[in-house]
Amino acid sequence: MKLYGYYRSSCSYRVRIVLNLKGIEVEHVPVHLVRGGGEQFAPDFVAKNPMAQVPLLELDSGERLAQSVAIVEYLEETVPTPPLLPHEPIARARVRALVEMVNSGIQPLQNTRVLGELTNRGVDPGEWGRLFVRLGLEAIERTAAASAGQFLVGDALTLADVYLVPQLYNGRRFGVDLSPFPTLLRVEAACLALPAFDRARPERQPDAEP
Amino acid sequence: MKLYGYYRSSCSYRVRIVLNLKGIEVEHVPVHLVRGGGEQFAPDFVAKNPMAQVPLLELDSGERLAQSVAIVEYLEETVPTPPLLPHEPIARARVRALVEMVNSGIQPLQNTRVLGELTNRGVDPGEWGRLFVRLGLEAIERTAAASAGQFLVGDALTLADVYLVPQLYNGRRFGVDLSPFPTLLRVEAACLALPAFDRARPERQPDAEP
Repeated sequence: MKLYGYYRSSCSYRVRIVLNLKGIEVEHVPVHLVRGGGEQFAPDFVAKNPMAQVPLLELDSGERLAQSVAIVEYLEETVPTPPLLPHEPIARARVRALVEMVNSGIQPLQNTRVLGELTNRGVDPGEWGRLFVRLGLEAIERTAAASAGQFLVGDALTLADVYLVPQLYNGRRFGVDLSPFPTLLRVEAACLALPAFDRARPERQPDAEP
Repeated sequence: MKLYGYYRSSCSYRVRIVLNLKGIEVEHVPVHLVRGGGEQFAPDFVAKNPMAQVPLLELDSGERLAQSVAIVEYLEETVPTPPLLPHEPIARARVRALVEMVNSGIQPLQNTRVLGELTNRGVDPGEWGRLFVRLGLEAIERTAAASAGQFLVGDALTLADVYLVPQLYNGRRFGVDLSPFPTLLRVEAACLALPAFDRARPERQPDAEP
């Protein structure tokens, strides 16, 4: 398998964590999202993913999967150990809701394309990014306060944690004050103590820049 | 079961379609997202959903589920007939990728909160909404051109179709020219010919306004 990704892309970071947790070895192919106007727009990459986005998981069969939730649900279904969703349907829904609060509620509002369009319209992208990261994390902190044990939903690691950690990384890049989110910071520390998370960190990737 | 929703909310519309397809009867509880500053912010609703968002599905047990993907995956797991995801993992990933292209790639960029923040910053929310709806639908049209049969992924109805139809409804509200999306319009027509979709349309809801 090949994972086309970018060290700082929070969506690539999520997939790296899941691959590490499941013990799946892949070849990492860096796609620099900024350099030269973005390597994701190069014809040979667009031929692979018409969306011009990372992450993109290329299976040994040649099949290519895009969009992080679709990819991690595929990995969960095909490599079920260790499980990253609980067994019970209501608990699964709680995990997926937290995933969606990051994946739809925060990340899309602070991605590179959106920030560029804001800048073109005279809006400060930093202030915008901080606002929506903060609002989203406030909602997740409130939700997690009711569900968290050692991790966001009880004491077992789930996809909710996999989505949280890269979003906190993005929050720091935007300069968001994370001190109002004690539950999230506690869970983040528990995650980053695990080798699968640590090895997935942006600064540990071969394409990381100083 | 109770579904707290709003007739024009595309996220509520998705859940209505799935409930209808699965033959699940629910009590519909309207939450007007505009009137009086938004009924979703009323203390009695916030007590039910701290996110102050619809849709919210309240089970007979009193458990409450938020976020549309989490809700529809729960319904798929607990009421498997008719299936709205294919059996085969790669096909499931293709469906979930299309769901995510709507759920994370388009809808969050054109929801009420975001448009309000844009207006506050002097940005034309209509032009912004049209841009991101168009970009997202272009990507879905390209993807669907390779996967579609009678529906977006082959000849069986899936969650991808459930997410498409409300997004096209939103696109029309923004005044997006949909003529460049022949595959999507063809699939939409096939969906709306089904009673489960027709009964879920915003204008058929008891809280619909003229």
